[in-house]
Amino acid sequence: MAVPFITEVKRTHTCGQLTKEHIGQEVVLFGWVQNRRDHGGAVFIDLRDREGLTQVVFEPDAKEAHETAGQLRLEYCVGIRGKVVSRGKNVNAKMKTGEIEVKADALTIFNRSEPTPFLIEDSIDTAEEKRLAHRYLDLRRKPLQQSLMTRSKMNALTRQYMVQNGFLELETPFMGKYTPGGARNFLVPSRLNPGKFYALAESPQLYKQLFMVAGFERYFQIVKCFRDEDLRLDRQPEFTQIDVEMSFVTQDDVFTIIEGLIKKLWKEVLDVDVPTPFMRMDFYESMDKYGNDKPDLRFGLEHVVLTDLIREHGEGGGVPLLHEAVQNKGIVKAMVLPVAKPLSRAETDKLEEFAKQAGARGLARAKVGEGGEWTQSPLAKTISPALRHAINEKCNAKTGDLILFQFGRESLVHTVMANLRVHVAKKLGLIPEYGSGGQWRFLWVVNPPLFEYDEETKTWAAAHHAFTRPHDGDVQYLLTDPGRVKCHRYDVVLNGFEIGGGSIRLHDPKVQSEVFKALGISDEEARTKFGFLLDALKFGAPPHGGIALGMDRLAMLLTGAESLRDVIPFPKTKTGTDQMTGAPGDVDERQLKEIHVRAVPPPSQQPK
Amino acid sequence: MAVPFITEVKRTHTCGQLTKEHIGQEVVLFGWVQNRRDHGGAVFIDLRDREGLTQVVFEPDAKEAHETAGQLRLEYCVGIRGKVVSRGKNVNAKMKTGEIEVKADALTIFNRSEPTPFLIEDSIDTAEEKRLAHRYLDLRRKPLQQSLMTRSKMNALTRQYMVQNGFLELETPFMGKYTPGGARNFLVPSRLNPGKFYALAESPQLYKQLFMVAGFERYFQIVKCFRDEDLRLDRQPEFTQIDVEMSFVTQDDVFTIIEGLIKKLWKEVLDVDVPTPFMRMDFYESMDKYGNDKPDLRFGLEHVVLTDLIREHGEGGGVPLLHEAVQNKGIVKAMVLPVAKPLSRAETDKLEEFAKQAGARGLARAKVGEGGEWTQSPLAKTISPALRHAINEKCNAKTGDLILFQFGRESLVHTVMANLRVHVAKKLGLIPEYGSGGQWRFLWVVNPPLFEYDEETKTWAAAHHAFTRPHDGDVQYLLTDPGRVKCHRYDVVLNGFEIGGGSIRLHDPKVQSEVFKALGISDEEARTKFGFLLDALKFGAPPHGGIALGMDRLAMLLTGAESLRDVIPFPKTKTGTDQMTGAPGDVDERQLKEIHVRAVPPPSQQPK
Repeated sequence: MAVPFITEVKRTHTCGQLTKEHIGQEVVLFGWVQNRRDHGGAVFIDLRDREGLTQVVFEPDAKEAHETAGQLRLEYCVGIRGKVVSRGKNVNAKMKTGEIEVKADALTIFNRSEPTPFLIEDSIDTAEEKRLAHRYLDLRRKPLQQSLMTRSKMNALTRQYMVQNGFLELETPFMGKYTPGGARNFLVPSRLNPGKFYALAESPQLYKQLFMVAGFERYFQIVKCFRDEDLRLDRQPEFTQIDVEMSFVTQDDVFTIIEGLIKKLWKEVLDVDVPTPFMRMDFYESMDKYGNDKPDLRFGLEHVVLTDLIREHGEGGGVPLLHEAVQNKGIVKAMVLPVAKPLSRAETDKLEEFAKQAGARGLARAKVGEGGEWTQSPLAKTISPALRHAINEKCNAKTGDLILFQFGRESLVHTVMANLRVHVAKKLGLIPEYGSGGQWRFLWVVNPPLFEYDEETKTWAAAHHAFTRPHDGDVQYLLTDPGRVKCHRYDVVLNGFEIGGGSIRLHDPKVQSEVFKALGISDEEARTKFGFLLDALKFGAPPHGGIALGMDRLAMLLTGAESLRDVIPFPKTKTGTDQMTGAPGDVDERQLKEIHVRAVPPPSQQPK
Repeated sequence: MAVPFITEVKRTHTCGQLTKEHIGQEVVLFGWVQNRRDHGGAVFIDLRDREGLTQVVFEPDAKEAHETAGQLRLEYCVGIRGKVVSRGKNVNAKMKTGEIEVKADALTIFNRSEPTPFLIEDSIDTAEEKRLAHRYLDLRRKPLQQSLMTRSKMNALTRQYMVQNGFLELETPFMGKYTPGGARNFLVPSRLNPGKFYALAESPQLYKQLFMVAGFERYFQIVKCFRDEDLRLDRQPEFTQIDVEMSFVTQDDVFTIIEGLIKKLWKEVLDVDVPTPFMRMDFYESMDKYGNDKPDLRFGLEHVVLTDLIREHGEGGGVPLLHEAVQNKGIVKAMVLPVAKPLSRAETDKLEEFAKQAGARGLARAKVGEGGEWTQSPLAKTISPALRHAINEKCNAKTGDLILFQFGRESLVHTVMANLRVHVAKKLGLIPEYGSGGQWRFLWVVNPPLFEYDEETKTWAAAHHAFTRPHDGDVQYLLTDPGRVKCHRYDVVLNGFEIGGGSIRLHDPKVQSEVFKALGISDEEARTKFGFLLDALKFGAPPHGGIALGMDRLAMLLTGAESLRDVIPFPKTKTGTDQMTGAPGDVDERQLKEIHVRAVPPPSQQPK
């Protein structure tokens, strides 16, 4: 008679649970056939569920179960009942349950499986497209299971922590107002309001500020956001952030909350003690030393800014290109590759290619000789000994070191040198290609400028968003010298990734109006874009600030995953398509008519 | 000198915290001026934050603070420092902090407020439109603050409970595949795939089933869903559900989990002990007794089905209309209004109007006299004494009781009688107009039919969704007698509201294929609509089932709010607009061109 699994005979243990302490007990396990070995008489399977693997043996004496076991194939979903027995000498030390096996007396097949298009194993080399098309099978593989289970744990820990700290989880609308000139939003045609569109929220920014105006004081949300950007390999059209806003706080208060959260996540997920407070670094220091505002601090290779030195030496110290760069308001940077960890000549040559791919015209270099002279360098011939000496000294370059140079437009020099720094570090084995290598270097980058000068339009633009609060002492320069105004914006950085950013907000209508003036935003434009927030600030808005952390990125770093796609259950490809469902798809005319739009693909893609 | 509030002088307490135990302590409070009384010398304010109110007094001896206090107006956002003192005899027993006041020695105004468009008071009669336009002020009012804080607590408790029970919180995509012929979805044009559209997910249904196929075993999510329906007063285009799916379970296992969750929510939010397990009722019993599958069990007024009785008495027992109804496959129902709680004649007359508004042609009634004879009834003249007697008996109608009748098309009779039942209950004061009245009658409605017959198209359609599992014993009737097949679908009902529903799913490809055949869904159609799920079921899908609870509704019922809008921070109106932001809005041509659509509002609404 069939054993009534599920209805009456319930699972007693998971497949990751049984040890020699359970020997002799009768157990019921449910799961999938991970592999199967038919040794003439007995049939062995490894039964898998989300918690692990357990070996199950079907002996001929349990006739019915043994017969059914003969039909088992990989990925069949089954239930078994049996007795836990010792494996004796055949202990499998690699398995958590390797001391025991279950001698089955009953087996039922819940569902059969066709042969899977790829094997459900920890490491496979199946093309990602194929794996995405059968994502429900790819997700059975342990690395993805583990990542998503860790992510679920991160969710739970985050919420626990935030609630303990007095934060309310409050929801914000996904379908909001389209703001002309903002980020590229996904749009949703309105059926009830013909010709009008919703924008899918790119973040709850304005709403969370309104929560502060409404007096909720501490808000958080783990929330999906939408951005219709051209997708780089590691971007997703929908992504998740831990969104936080607090009233009556300074920047330091926000830092303390976030440091506490990260400390908790790292401790409870990885058992790693993250020291707090995190290091803090001025925005400009970060740009000088690392070329960007998200430096990887696991290694040195700091940049050295030589611009002033070149200028002091006049005429570029004999090097026309340096002179030219400085004259054109460019900058000059160097980076020293120490002799202690040398690259081969061939590898060094390849660095130039890399620099060019990053946008550089070339990569000047110099090897420092015994007496400080330079070799292997196009600069060596004309450079004045004085400048050479000064550069060696400023770079602290020793005999045998290799100095790399970039000069020219500031932003380009920073970018090339920043990329080069990380590239070299990987070449030198200072950091692994993926993952942390066990080093977790958190950092706050602080005090950036409020405005950025847009060379194209010759105007000042908000570097972050228009509601960032300037330093009180700099408010006086808002209209006279905007480039000088620093602000209460901050990014939190981990191992070269920006994992979050935020700011203290403008809550004072007077200062806010001056900032808008400096940005050249007219009252009318301000009303169109932010009308309701400007209104809200008039009614006793509290001082407030907040931050958003990228949950996908955080999960990726914490789990050591190679890609964001490994921590998102159903990700989309670079073209925004879902390989499994085929989304986005066609919609019939009738449906489009109802929402008052017509599809007008470019001529080349219209059906004939 | 100004006291450096926030930067150095931090808040020590909330405004809901101080009691006589704090007398003598120096405290710092931040908040809003709820009201202000200037008694010649001293200035009094009630300071409000999200936790409560505290009276603060500014005496002339604290000169600077007192002077600043003179400028205070309602809703100014301020910080104060002072000493907690006793109110002596002037204790305000209505306030949590009514025993004390804070004698301030320092005051700072963080932000001023213009006069608000309506008062920030518990109860105001401002039109909802105006309140929605200034939602950030409306949300300062205590009832809304409390509701949203409770909702945040419900979120936290739910997640805690689900995680404790081994559920993983896993995310599902919001932008998915459009399924032709499904519910009305919001559509999102794809910029990267011209002419194609995403559909905003109306639920994570298919994805959560795929999580089971992928072996995650227990999934939950508190998740936004989107439905582009015509909005009734109490519907929202985006809504939130507690979404749950489990592998290797029976219906009872799902019930146990949900009952535990609800028990916890009610206990920890309201301190109410909800008895479990909940009552269970057969779908057909619910239809017979209450006219729908979401009965309010807080009161009686059960329906009595008379159809068979009428039929037995032949020719409608002398009443042609009854005869006609039964002949046309209609039904006959009665409901007794007991003499113990009588309605006035005028009120009784109004019931007929109500029934007509609900779609009835009329409302036959009969008052039962001493000898069982009927008065006040158009039926009284022709009805046979035998039928009258039989009806009195079946309805258990006593002298003075009033019997109400409906007959005709089954669905209409059920609906009218269901509405009438609730309407009468409110008239009789058996239940309040809004809120629970302290009674919480939870119920599972079970064993509904798998199919519904569509009179219009003369076909069978899935009553719920196409992946609901039929009772094993009924599988044999799938093709021969589909109307007879019951299924493992279930709704959880509270006080007349469906608060959730779900089912055990079809996991067996063979049965699933028969169900599709019964539904007249061709293989091709099935592939287009559910291709990836059908594929997934072929690879050892486990038996699984789940449920979704409406979080908005649950929050509304738990907080006793009158409307869903009271438990949603930024709700939309009936026409799907946001009164505060103006969404949905206009989008410029350039932007539309980028996403490959053109707006084509109906001619009457096109700009001239």
